[in-house]
Amino acid sequence: MVKIIVQKFGGTSVADGEGRARAIERILAAKAEGYQPVVVVSAMGRKGAPYATDTLISLVKEINPEVNPRELDLLISCGEIISTVVMAHTLNSMGHPAIALTGGQAGIKTDANFGNAQILEVDPMPILRQVMEDKIVVVAGFQGIAPDGSITTLGRGGSDTTATALGAALQAEVVEIYTDVDGVMTVDPRVEPEAKILEEISYREVCEMAYQGAKVIHPRAVEVAMSRQVPIRIKNTFSDAKGTLISQSAAERVITGIAHLTGLSQVRVLSSRDGQQNWQLVRVKLFRVLAEKGISVDVISVLPDGVYFTVSQADGFKACQYLHEAGFACELVENCAKVSVIGAGMQGVPGVMAEIMETLYSAGIDILQTSDSDITISFLVPESQLKEAVHVLHRKLGW
Amino acid sequence: MVKIIVQKFGGTSVADGEGRARAIERILAAKAEGYQPVVVVSAMGRKGAPYATDTLISLVKEINPEVNPRELDLLISCGEIISTVVMAHTLNSMGHPAIALTGGQAGIKTDANFGNAQILEVDPMPILRQVMEDKIVVVAGFQGIAPDGSITTLGRGGSDTTATALGAALQAEVVEIYTDVDGVMTVDPRVEPEAKILEEISYREVCEMAYQGAKVIHPRAVEVAMSRQVPIRIKNTFSDAKGTLISQSAAERVITGIAHLTGLSQVRVLSSRDGQQNWQLVRVKLFRVLAEKGISVDVISVLPDGVYFTVSQADGFKACQYLHEAGFACELVENCAKVSVIGAGMQGVPGVMAEIMETLYSAGIDILQTSDSDITISFLVPESQLKEAVHVLHRKLGW
Repeated sequence: MVKIIVQKFGGTSVADGEGRARAIERILAAKAEGYQPVVVVSAMGRKGAPYATDTLISLVKEINPEVNPRELDLLISCGEIISTVVMAHTLNSMGHPAIALTGGQAGIKTDANFGNAQILEVDPMPILRQVMEDKIVVVAGFQGIAPDGSITTLGRGGSDTTATALGAALQAEVVEIYTDVDGVMTVDPRVEPEAKILEEISYREVCEMAYQGAKVIHPRAVEVAMSRQVPIRIKNTFSDAKGTLISQSAAERVITGIAHLTGLSQVRVLSSRDGQQNWQLVRVKLFRVLAEKGISVDVISVLPDGVYFTVSQADGFKACQYLHEAGFACELVENCAKVSVIGAGMQGVPGVMAEIMETLYSAGIDILQTSDSDITISFLVPESQLKEAVHVLHRKLGW
Repeated sequence: MVKIIVQKFGGTSVADGEGRARAIERILAAKAEGYQPVVVVSAMGRKGAPYATDTLISLVKEINPEVNPRELDLLISCGEIISTVVMAHTLNSMGHPAIALTGGQAGIKTDANFGNAQILEVDPMPILRQVMEDKIVVVAGFQGIAPDGSITTLGRGGSDTTATALGAALQAEVVEIYTDVDGVMTVDPRVEPEAKILEEISYREVCEMAYQGAKVIHPRAVEVAMSRQVPIRIKNTFSDAKGTLISQSAAERVITGIAHLTGLSQVRVLSSRDGQQNWQLVRVKLFRVLAEKGISVDVISVLPDGVYFTVSQADGFKACQYLHEAGFACELVENCAKVSVIGAGMQGVPGVMAEIMETLYSAGIDILQTSDSDITISFLVPESQLKEAVHVLHRKLGW
């Protein structure tokens, strides 16, 4: 029986001969284990490299920053295409038959929402035909083809989605996402040196971690894998660490990890009882005002005497200005950070909230607001206290 | 009625903002005259530029010079795609609605002969749909799509073929080929300073000029235009010269121009009557020996006592070696040049050959061999005498 493995390599893994050599070791190791590798690659390198996405974008943006999204996608798609050819050629040169396919050639069909296209369907046949000829298939990540034949891109993080969508369509045994970190960490190691690698994590936990600010894998990519129950493994191209396995059946701990987001402002709108208007109605109007101005809100607490929420630091002042103009009394607290404790097992486990509150209180952390969903408890704290908050929680919660 | 004009711009015309500005002047001038422009572009710039064809090729060739032709085509195609996006974007930015199309998106269907694909069919609908919306269509030159969806390239000079194939399929009024010279010249101006621009030339004359070494337009591109009688105009992006019109009905002069090829060696195989073999048969074997070694021959004179032909200088020594091994007595004359006098009107005009011979003799030119076809008379001369031979002929033949 044909066992397919999808292996996705990011920009740093394909930027130079050194990275490609490491990537190819991984590909050949999979082949030696009896897998048929389907390889997904990002564009080569990062800022400044001639075929990196940002460099291609600057080619047109320096002429005029307003670029037609259809043409921009066509341009950007070349970055990944060049990368596939270089990778396939390197494999061929080493005597391992390989073929490079664009997203469209690989059967990835999307809508025409340029710059952020959704995959509508993956036709597995183009890749399977090559796999049956024992070829290593190298697919350009981050791209697909719209119904009218235009080239589309899937938005940032899109190569991961390419990988998991192929994994699902090809019924792969596993999708390996190669990056430059050893796996999904319990917490951002730049904030907390005691961060540990998670051996496994469930689909919904990793989605929540990403949503709450952890830079691991795009939630969209995880959802696609989840829909067909394809396990994902996050690995480091440059180390032999075992990495993190993402699957449905991952043992769910009470607490899995801590994520954070910085650059937030808290907006506090207090009830003004001076008008004839009903406060209930006014509160609704408040969100309408912000929506019409295109301002996104998060960590929302609607209370009898006031409404609290966060906006990005960049939107903070504008948000208050619009609300003032609309007749609201509003205060702005800048430089906030959101710390989120994530664990699918915390539901119904008594005392988690208590323990977190006590821990933060003991450390003198100023809790500005809280919010919780089924597997997450979030705290808004002053950004100056972020590191300390993460540290005491990480230590207390058992890593 | 919709009048379509196809305008093709080469590498130097799209390499930088200056070139693009000139190109766009030409496009807008055509629009102002009531044409719907369909623009074909080459890759940006020449050697060394990051998106030039040669630079893309070196990306993989420096890993291993043996590149799979399918992957090489996919890689190269990005050069023209990037160029289309930059051009379409520049037009859009100036308020002229434009759309960029890859060769495949533009309906150019080829065989799967990678690196040198033949256009099998052009579906005019994708471009016409855009033209009907009054868009300037910018098409990536030099590429198409194979029946299996692979990207192909049309070989060197292929962007000209893209332009004329589109001209034919769209029933364009004219195909304009923009380059960095003022038109088709009577002779290479680097060899003969008195070279003049030809106002018009017939399809078959320009094909013969190109075949005999003049760097004007690829014969394949001309043949495609000829099949549907689409006139071609060769113009200079950077000057207002009228250029050269290529068409069926161009008045055919007795002599149209002089072309030349350098870097040739003459091989002289003399009859050896020492064997039992028949010389007639041996002469056949001679060409078989060379064919099996992949050596191309030109200017062939098969005579009772010997066989004369030319090969490229690079093949000269090898050719003689193979022939020696096969038992032939053979001499090599290196550093030869072929001068060809082309004119569709010379057929049946008495005295042309006489005039040429006399002219060359008077100038002391050593004629090593001659050959002639319906519209061409060629002379093999020592390369050291090329300039003088061209000069006296050019002056004598009436320019």
